[in-house]
Amino acid sequence: MRRSPEKILLPRGFSFSALAAGIKVSGRPDLALVEIDGGANAGALFTTNRVVAAPVEVGRTALGKSGGRVRAVIVNSGNANCATGPAGIAACARVCGDAAKILGTSAAEVFPSSTGIIGVPLPDKKIRAQLPELIRSRSASLRAAEDFARAIMTTDTRPKIASARFRISSERKTRKYGSATANDVTVLGVAKGAGMIHPQLATMLVYIFTDLKASAPDLRTLLREASDESFNCMSIDGDTSTNDTVLLLASGASCIALRDGAARTNFSAALNGVCRSLAEQIISDGEGVQHVIRLHVAGARSCDEALTVARTIAHSLLVKTAWAGADPNWGRILAAVGRCGVAIDPARVNVFIGAQKVCSGGVAWPFDRRRAHQALARQECDVRVELGRGRESIQFLTTDLTAEYVRINADYST
Amino acid sequence: MRRSPEKILLPRGFSFSALAAGIKVSGRPDLALVEIDGGANAGALFTTNRVVAAPVEVGRTALGKSGGRVRAVIVNSGNANCATGPAGIAACARVCGDAAKILGTSAAEVFPSSTGIIGVPLPDKKIRAQLPELIRSRSASLRAAEDFARAIMTTDTRPKIASARFRISSERKTRKYGSATANDVTVLGVAKGAGMIHPQLATMLVYIFTDLKASAPDLRTLLREASDESFNCMSIDGDTSTNDTVLLLASGASCIALRDGAARTNFSAALNGVCRSLAEQIISDGEGVQHVIRLHVAGARSCDEALTVARTIAHSLLVKTAWAGADPNWGRILAAVGRCGVAIDPARVNVFIGAQKVCSGGVAWPFDRRRAHQALARQECDVRVELGRGRESIQFLTTDLTAEYVRINADYST
Repeated sequence: MRRSPEKILLPRGFSFSALAAGIKVSGRPDLALVEIDGGANAGALFTTNRVVAAPVEVGRTALGKSGGRVRAVIVNSGNANCATGPAGIAACARVCGDAAKILGTSAAEVFPSSTGIIGVPLPDKKIRAQLPELIRSRSASLRAAEDFARAIMTTDTRPKIASARFRISSERKTRKYGSATANDVTVLGVAKGAGMIHPQLATMLVYIFTDLKASAPDLRTLLREASDESFNCMSIDGDTSTNDTVLLLASGASCIALRDGAARTNFSAALNGVCRSLAEQIISDGEGVQHVIRLHVAGARSCDEALTVARTIAHSLLVKTAWAGADPNWGRILAAVGRCGVAIDPARVNVFIGAQKVCSGGVAWPFDRRRAHQALARQECDVRVELGRGRESIQFLTTDLTAEYVRINADYST
Repeated sequence: MRRSPEKILLPRGFSFSALAAGIKVSGRPDLALVEIDGGANAGALFTTNRVVAAPVEVGRTALGKSGGRVRAVIVNSGNANCATGPAGIAACARVCGDAAKILGTSAAEVFPSSTGIIGVPLPDKKIRAQLPELIRSRSASLRAAEDFARAIMTTDTRPKIASARFRISSERKTRKYGSATANDVTVLGVAKGAGMIHPQLATMLVYIFTDLKASAPDLRTLLREASDESFNCMSIDGDTSTNDTVLLLASGASCIALRDGAARTNFSAALNGVCRSLAEQIISDGEGVQHVIRLHVAGARSCDEALTVARTIAHSLLVKTAWAGADPNWGRILAAVGRCGVAIDPARVNVFIGAQKVCSGGVAWPFDRRRAHQALARQECDVRVELGRGRESIQFLTTDLTAEYVRINADYST
């Protein structure tokens, strides 16, 4: 599935680069860098999987040590550096240490990420040999940001980038800075992820850059809020990765602080918009995905309850394969709702496909099968489930499950 | 996947019949009967789904009313009579009522089952029109039992039958009865199910017939024990059906009672064997299944914990698709264990594929990839996960996920 590319806006203070270090067998770019000249404050979220990759352990520790300061992020694709034991941790630390030396900073300010196959030693020599060139070639350009986005891809078919900009009308800020005026704040997000995508993050790497001035704790709070409504409300296959990372970096180069005027409200909106756009890009690039389903679960007693229902539907193989066939088989949706653990009363459940009601009070409702089939055959379709239990609702993004997904994942590693 | 057929043994007291009532579009047999001349005591287990089909509601109520007595079972395939509301209940009751009249018994002693598509009104007129012929043509023959097994199939590619016989050496019993001697007890099981198969039962109908004398409560206890180690320890796709039923009927025609000598021990063993065989037949006939995986989870603190780990592995799309490709990608298994909610320590987890260790202490263990691939490429493969937390273990049957599964389920209903 293709979406039209968005216009990309660059926040101030960030330089990017990427190259092929020979980790991917394909010879494609697999090593990427973001560098923040003056350093950035960072908020981060990590996978909830108990099996965590070495870079997640190293990165989490580093943020603790540096007090949430990040000077550079180094990402490799093609190898997850997971299930690699103490040797994997050491390999990751060597990469960060070498990069820190070149940049003249501490290793704790270099944040590592890895994505790719699990259980294979990280070829850190290959990576370290390329660090001087990677760092030297960095530039604060759109093109370099796009190269970064491309180098972090694995089974993704295209890079995922979103951005937003807002203006704070303050008399103080007048100095020009690149193409943005000094009272503009820009948010740029770059992501990878096409499979193993599941609530609570999954083989998903997301980097969000802003030139806002904000503290690490504030950034974490804002990032958590934005993620709950985007990355945590989607699922391709229900698998949760060992490497998931969402990192929000604020360079402060706009000189506008989170507490200035309406900056917080504006920034929240911009950040949420970028996260939602990235989530949609990830979902629509899901492995083998033909149809994106925008699942609305309404009438729940709580958001958690709505989320449980949404996830059970989104992970049902029978529902997902019906969607692959654009089959308005609402019985499978109802059966998934029935087994999700929420004490629903089937006689109060309604189901809608596209604009049509197809199930009312747990029973078939007369509908135009052809129209329902056509709605599901589109790139995107709305499916709505009303539980009749309360007033809470959520929106959840998910996908069909196609034979192509199976092919991609049956052929992957060996 | 094919298995060699087992020799089928018939318990005394049961007559079978089947015919095509025109419920299935294919015109194949879709209506089946078991009749017990003197009536049988029954133990039953039903789906845990909150959305339950009309026959499950009607059958459960009937067993309560009749005190666990069953004179006949009527099964239709091609229509699940689920999400059909009060009209579905009424249609089911009409079928049971008509059959009861012909048999000269009460409707509460006629046990109904349905399997097939959800949300479509049951064509009870078609069924009722065929009841006289269905009942008239019943016979206590192997051939009729096989016809019964075939008529309850939906996406199954073959009937599923298993049987066992044991002898109680008692001086009292000498009278001949058919091919079995009077001190033989026979257990015959018939099942259907090929998708939506999941712990806690799923579009799975299982009927087990024995000529043992046993009370309804005893039968239920024995059935629960046997199901926990068979039907509740397997999964094809993680979906739980609205119609699952496991019914154990004891005609008492052997004149051997559960409490006679070693009857209980022998019967338990025979029943467990029949249930395990049916579970294996269901799994190996799973929709699109190429490989059956015998998953051993060991070193758990409790059986529940082991089951949680087994189910998470068995439901991981990434693990199942790797198995489809006979890919020894143990990293996906480890990642599934990590997200299952059990507080495992990855550094204590070992994984084996076939006879080889592939992951030791959460880290790659040198193994022969070719041999591991060959082991997974066989019809059946053992996969063992050791958690290093305790002494409990379970065995769980599951399958790969193939493009064929997707095809079958994307094309099913409309």
